[in-house]
Amino acid sequence: MGEDVAALCERLVAGDRRALARLLTLVEDGPPDVHRRIVAGLHPHRRGARLLGITGPPGVGKSSLTNALVGRLRARGRRVAVLAVDPSSPLTGGALLGDRIRMQEHHADADVFVRSMAARGHLGGLAAAAPEAALALDAAGYDDVLIETVGVGQSEVDVMGVADAVAVVLAPGLGDSVQAAKAGVLEIADVLVVNKADQSGAGRLESELRTMLEVGHASDPSRPTEAMPPVLRTVAVRGEGVDEVLDALADRAAADAAGDREVRRARRWIAELALGRLRRELTDPATAAGGRLHDLADRVVGGGMDPAAAADVLLGRPGEAGSDA
Amino acid sequence: MGEDVAALCERLVAGDRRALARLLTLVEDGPPDVHRRIVAGLHPHRRGARLLGITGPPGVGKSSLTNALVGRLRARGRRVAVLAVDPSSPLTGGALLGDRIRMQEHHADADVFVRSMAARGHLGGLAAAAPEAALALDAAGYDDVLIETVGVGQSEVDVMGVADAVAVVLAPGLGDSVQAAKAGVLEIADVLVVNKADQSGAGRLESELRTMLEVGHASDPSRPTEAMPPVLRTVAVRGEGVDEVLDALADRAAADAAGDREVRRARRWIAELALGRLRRELTDPATAAGGRLHDLADRVVGGGMDPAAAADVLLGRPGEAGSDA
Repeated sequence: MGEDVAALCERLVAGDRRALARLLTLVEDGPPDVHRRIVAGLHPHRRGARLLGITGPPGVGKSSLTNALVGRLRARGRRVAVLAVDPSSPLTGGALLGDRIRMQEHHADADVFVRSMAARGHLGGLAAAAPEAALALDAAGYDDVLIETVGVGQSEVDVMGVADAVAVVLAPGLGDSVQAAKAGVLEIADVLVVNKADQSGAGRLESELRTMLEVGHASDPSRPTEAMPPVLRTVAVRGEGVDEVLDALADRAAADAAGDREVRRARRWIAELALGRLRRELTDPATAAGGRLHDLADRVVGGGMDPAAAADVLLGRPGEAGSDA
Repeated sequence: MGEDVAALCERLVAGDRRALARLLTLVEDGPPDVHRRIVAGLHPHRRGARLLGITGPPGVGKSSLTNALVGRLRARGRRVAVLAVDPSSPLTGGALLGDRIRMQEHHADADVFVRSMAARGHLGGLAAAAPEAALALDAAGYDDVLIETVGVGQSEVDVMGVADAVAVVLAPGLGDSVQAAKAGVLEIADVLVVNKADQSGAGRLESELRTMLEVGHASDPSRPTEAMPPVLRTVAVRGEGVDEVLDALADRAAADAAGDREVRRARRWIAELALGRLRRELTDPATAAGGRLHDLADRVVGGGMDPAAAADVLLGRPGEAGSDA
């Protein structure tokens, strides 16, 4: 389709940053067949980058922590890529969190690559696009890929599914917004970070978090208490506590490398790719699935079928639709 | 399956609040076949309730606005249901935003029904569960269903797809959290609300929003300027500006009733049901789809296939996988 994806992939693997940037743009808004060729072209060139996730509600200082982590990783001699995932819309794109205003202190460092990524073409497709972008950064030779998300919705939780270890960042003084946020993201945390720990309320937030963790673990006998994520304090803008966060993430990522995370990640990625593809098809009446959806919706509105039965027909499981009505 | 869903549906339609509560619990965490029977049982009893969405980032006062809207709707003689959708996890459930602490002033009013709903059983399934819950509240005879979400992620945007009109609520003083939030939700807004309008920064937020709207519309010739959502100011805790928000939402819902929103809503609902069902199946190796996913992931990790090709095979489109590699 016009652009030579295979050649771009080769250039990326050889260390060409412009090819990397172009491929990430294609990951963001390229057509489905281009995605397929990117994954096929890069998958054999995986080098095993460590993928570290940083998530949490707006305003807690995730970007500051990411910035500080980049500094610590560089001090340890590692090449670092940052992928800032913004589940925003085509209307405003990722412009608000543009690469230009981020990470200025690492701007001149050739071994730091920063990229923000928005939903653009495929709404809801970030959970499939993030691992594709991480693959590109891995194949390009970055040792660590920091995946930072904005917000705390389900899409952020899905995006974090790609990471080897996840830090959930909170901060005191956000009132019930933190309450609301904690619910959705606590259980994906490998490390909990109380940032802005020099502000009042940090101690209370920390003890609240410990209580929530203990309650959560007590109610689920399959989770041993020793597996509870550590709760660490940072003042990211001053670099305080950042090494400890990095060590905890590294420990967790290393422990998991011995486990089955690779196969779980592959399952999740394949599933998200398939669901994302089906979702795209359903919004396009020119596809077989999209055309069927239009017909079914007309029948539902006309009263000839209920939505659940229509969904069964859409998935090709018509036999079950009426069997227990 | 044990419980008599058809009888519960009949009792709900006859006005039994306990049947309604029980059915909403089944919507939240019932098995798939129960969902199918609920939709089949209630769909013929739709009465055409108006579905109004209220969304926005944490801390802007969405709950206060919802509470004030309930008061105004009751003053207009309408029966009102509130569905507070919380995209949180099984670990903490919706407990943090429990029904008990919400809407206390309407507690004694038999024509107000308040319910919070969390993801529970099916992560990612709220976009399919919300229209099902709204159907139950519609069939139970509520004139208006206010759907309030927590947060501003993709799942909230998806949930709002069910609404006849959507208010996006923002507030001054949240700094870059509002910046981040605006991006994702601006384009689903029928009405933009600047709440806490008595606080400093409200004027600046309002003009920023107008600028963003104008830029967005200017860059998309298909959107006429006159269709731009109004930007309204409220101080929800004092009830100021709430009638204007309600009127704007009602106008928009009425305008759209003449349009094709019902068929678009049906399309979206069927699609979310199908995608949600497929997502559930993929996490369960005992299903045909889940079993195939496990096998494919093993092949991908073993190097015999790339994830994109595996996704194609999973969807039964194997012919395309290698055709353009």
